[in-house]
Amino acid sequence: MTTQDDQLVDPDILDRVKGWRDYVEAKLGFRNHWYPVLLSDEVEEGKPVTAKLCGENLLLNRIDGEVHCIRDRCLHRGVKFSKKPECHTKATITCWYHGYTYRWADGKLTDVIAAPETRIVDGTRGVRSYIVEEAKGLVFVFLGDRDGNIPPLIDDVPPNFLDEDNYVLSQRQTVQSNWRHGVENGFDKTHIYIHRESLLIQENDLVLPLGFGASGEQSHELVDGEDGPRGVIEIYGPHVIPAFEGKIEGETVLKVPSDVTGKNLVPSTISMWMPCALKVDPWPDPKTTQFEWYVPIDETTHMYFQNLGTRAETDEEKRDFKREYNNRWAFYALEEFNGPDIWAREAAEEGYADDHQWVDEALFEADENIIVFRRLISKRNRGVQRPSDLRA
Amino acid sequence: MTTQDDQLVDPDILDRVKGWRDYVEAKLGFRNHWYPVLLSDEVEEGKPVTAKLCGENLLLNRIDGEVHCIRDRCLHRGVKFSKKPECHTKATITCWYHGYTYRWADGKLTDVIAAPETRIVDGTRGVRSYIVEEAKGLVFVFLGDRDGNIPPLIDDVPPNFLDEDNYVLSQRQTVQSNWRHGVENGFDKTHIYIHRESLLIQENDLVLPLGFGASGEQSHELVDGEDGPRGVIEIYGPHVIPAFEGKIEGETVLKVPSDVTGKNLVPSTISMWMPCALKVDPWPDPKTTQFEWYVPIDETTHMYFQNLGTRAETDEEKRDFKREYNNRWAFYALEEFNGPDIWAREAAEEGYADDHQWVDEALFEADENIIVFRRLISKRNRGVQRPSDLRA
Amino acid sequence: MTTQDDQLVDPDILDRVKGWRDYVEAKLGFRNHWYPVLLSDEVEEGKPVTAKLCGENLLLNRIDGEVHCIRDRCLHRGVKFSKKPECHTKATITCWYHGYTYRWADGKLTDVIAAPETRIVDGTRGVRSYIVEEAKGLVFVFLGDRDGNIPPLIDDVPPNFLDEDNYVLSQRQTVQSNWRHGVENGFDKTHIYIHRESLLIQENDLVLPLGFGASGEQSHELVDGEDGPRGVIEIYGPHVIPAFEGKIEGETVLKVPSDVTGKNLVPSTISMWMPCALKVDPWPDPKTTQFEWYVPIDETTHMYFQNLGTRAETDEEKRDFKREYNNRWAFYALEEFNGPDIWAREAAEEGYADDHQWVDEALFEADENIIVFRRLISKRNRGVQRPSDLRA
Repeated sequence: MTTQDDQLVDPDILDRVKGWRDYVEAKLGFRNHWYPVLLSDEVEEGKPVTAKLCGENLLLNRIDGEVHCIRDRCLHRGVKFSKKPECHTKATITCWYHGYTYRWADGKLTDVIAAPETRIVDGTRGVRSYIVEEAKGLVFVFLGDRDGNIPPLIDDVPPNFLDEDNYVLSQRQTVQSNWRHGVENGFDKTHIYIHRESLLIQENDLVLPLGFGASGEQSHELVDGEDGPRGVIEIYGPHVIPAFEGKIEGETVLKVPSDVTGKNLVPSTISMWMPCALKVDPWPDPKTTQFEWYVPIDETTHMYFQNLGTRAETDEEKRDFKREYNNRWAFYALEEFNGPDIWAREAAEEGYADDHQWVDEALFEADENIIVFRRLISKRNRGVQRPSDLRA
Repeated sequence: MTTQDDQLVDPDILDRVKGWRDYVEAKLGFRNHWYPVLLSDEVEEGKPVTAKLCGENLLLNRIDGEVHCIRDRCLHRGVKFSKKPECHTKATITCWYHGYTYRWADGKLTDVIAAPETRIVDGTRGVRSYIVEEAKGLVFVFLGDRDGNIPPLIDDVPPNFLDEDNYVLSQRQTVQSNWRHGVENGFDKTHIYIHRESLLIQENDLVLPLGFGASGEQSHELVDGEDGPRGVIEIYGPHVIPAFEGKIEGETVLKVPSDVTGKNLVPSTISMWMPCALKVDPWPDPKTTQFEWYVPIDETTHMYFQNLGTRAETDEEKRDFKREYNNRWAFYALEEFNGPDIWAREAAEEGYADDHQWVDEALFEADENIIVFRRLISKRNRGVQRPSDLRA
Repeated sequence: MTTQDDQLVDPDILDRVKGWRDYVEAKLGFRNHWYPVLLSDEVEEGKPVTAKLCGENLLLNRIDGEVHCIRDRCLHRGVKFSKKPECHTKATITCWYHGYTYRWADGKLTDVIAAPETRIVDGTRGVRSYIVEEAKGLVFVFLGDRDGNIPPLIDDVPPNFLDEDNYVLSQRQTVQSNWRHGVENGFDKTHIYIHRESLLIQENDLVLPLGFGASGEQSHELVDGEDGPRGVIEIYGPHVIPAFEGKIEGETVLKVPSDVTGKNLVPSTISMWMPCALKVDPWPDPKTTQFEWYVPIDETTHMYFQNLGTRAETDEEKRDFKREYNNRWAFYALEEFNGPDIWAREAAEEGYADDHQWVDEALFEADENIIVFRRLISKRNRGVQRPSDLRA
């Protein structure tokens, strides 16, 4: 069913990719997966709000507390409802142009205000609607068909993310790179080289090497069971040899303090989960876990979600963590430490712009966990999102 | 003669269009038709001025009162004369680069100033020139070949537009949409839904329903005789059922006053004429007629001409109408009422951007007059303007 | 080896070009030639600086006085070193992302700082490096392979440019046109029409006609020996008939003073040299020669080098010429006189934008020297630069 015209990547390049063709093709991400698109706080009762996911324009609204999501495009003339959203009843949205009216709950066309009793309202027509679930302060959308087997949300998020006592605080921002450069930057073991002067490390009793030497031992573990979540875990500790000295042609050119006395040795694992979520555990300190999502917006942009989770059950614990998040981690971890990651992804976007770098890239031993993830998602994804999926 | 490379629309889409293939292909409009390009006032004696029509760059000049039009592109190096227009004699224009000199009247190359007696001046070469006619304060250009049968201007304008006692005042502006979204917005019977809060209606004793219910009776009339003008007339009055209440799932959500006592019931007909002119009669009041042109500039832009005509013969009548135009209609009708039309077209441009909406659109009964016009122009146009028409 | 996908110009157009197909195809210029890319002054010791040549991103650095040049693109992820250049040793540059480290001298990968002892450093891998030569205050790069026969710089510059007593002062600027519009504007005999009101002419005792009439005699000479430089020389003087009057349909419309008493009759020759250098001799006065380079940056941009050379050997002669250059020629010759040339090239860029003008152009007798150069370079170039040349 896929024609060449429906591919965003040159077929000659796809044919030269070994082992992860779907991943290289998935410029717009994968269909039939769950993705966070907004923070729960951003969807207020009765106030439609837009998002873009895997190239699809979405419109979300909260009705009686529950979030609904439809495609932001009228059947009639293809215009966006969001250009002038009209909700004449709580349960519906009306297109500003001719009054085509759709139910939030299922997208069905119920009326055309400018044409009473038109035959086009026949109970069969409607705009796409998407299943929504809220969890941990995030609004998740299942980008796929309502009919068919819809996997539970827990299959598409990192392990323990949904644990009842996992208290999560989050922020999001748009990054000017394809989503895969987010995935690969986040899961990349040796990119810590760019963080060597980070204030987070210096001022929070952390220790971070310049990189890692190969130990000869496999340091990653594949998680690919019958159900999800599916992912790849990179285990630090004994499996890798931290490098505290940087050498060029035998000469030491960089040196970071390697005295670990009294230091927080974090993280112990970094893992990447389908479709696009990272878990760094623990990070940025022994009591917290950082989660990240690199959600496809369109071919050249992704939404970067940064979430910190901690074990907190009482209101007081939550309040304390919120204070620590705002006063410490929002700056040191999420802004200052992750800042270079954002521009690294944007630089990689330039490097991979014409897709030839997917076959030209010179990966090395330390990239093996990335390769294992590429193979996993190419084998286990529930469908590449293609341009034709964005049409009627 | 048409190759795939010469089509601006994906042939797979064209093949799926039923009944109006030429119209969908005509992203740049149709050749061998008359179009207004400027207001007469804008072309001053001896001052060359540019316009763009169906993708073609034009240069116009008034000489001894008569307007001439040539292609704004020197044969030699393809540069635009308008970059630095040089008119060393009244009858000619000289290219600033090497002095290639052409006659305004017929485009013929007469001299090359930098190369006296060059053999390239052989009486056969020249730039394209276009036939121009002025009428009702507008400058019309026949975008087509000078040789061949040139239809009279009256064939390509709405009926009565050229009537001697039709006094017309006009303005123009560029709109960021393909010309067809102008045509379809203007002739669209139920888009009046977007005008329901218009000040024009409220403050000028007009009445406008929210839309129209289907009467079961045909409300349009096809005008397709041996000569032009050819068009489609939508007749209001008895053929349509005005809707003054808007309902969603049985519940009334909108209501406009339907008491027509003392109100001006305008218009009685709306008609669309080849190649791209609308006539709303009467509008915005019983003594005036609104004409509109949606002139193709390029693939994504059109020139929107708004004209109000009235029966006026004496200077006093004309002066009165000019005053009314300036003090009342310029704001209420042309700016405030038509404002939402402009952004509706721009929204439709986005909806039809990749041309798939031409096959995906969900038209309904009220769009029948639009469909009839699409069929008419697809059958009767004098040629689709193609990229190759813009070349030598 | 060339596929259609690897051509920047529509093959249908290339097939219609007679005699200079390679030239029309060479939107990115020609490979395996020497080009100036920067002024020597602009490359300081230990301070990497970027340039772009024939579509290739370059990074240059001066080490112990010698300039080196590598491709500005890490093998690993394709990112640019220049985004954050790191030189931990004098002889190397390190990629900011993972510490891939390369030798300036030959591009070889020596270390990966974040991965000590990685197997990817095997002595075979490296980024492209280019041969550099400095002469007359310019940094020349040989855009081609290091192995193979590398012609001496003298083969790719105008005759006498490298003469020991030729003292050269230079400036450069980016122009928004393809490099070929630079070449053709510079070598164009009759474009002097655009300079007819130049202050340089009026205020420096020069005389310049409006153009040239055909003498019937060949005015150009082809230089195409076994070695370079190869080029075409246009000889003024007896071979052309200067036109001091401009006529349109018999009427004189322009007249420039043709009294040459006491005037400097410059130049006597204008010549164009492969790959893209002009020599105007003498110009702008009897003691100086103007050289120009139109160096391909990318498809739509070129770097315009303007150089004035004079015979100067002593420091005092050089100081005098520098003063004259700064006080007189920088403004009159390079800025004021050449200003219209720059916008003429940008206008031509628009005319040739879709490449159809290469077959539609209406050249005339005076363009013959340009045609001869097109033929020469199409026959003698060392390779068209193609998109695939920009990849790994």
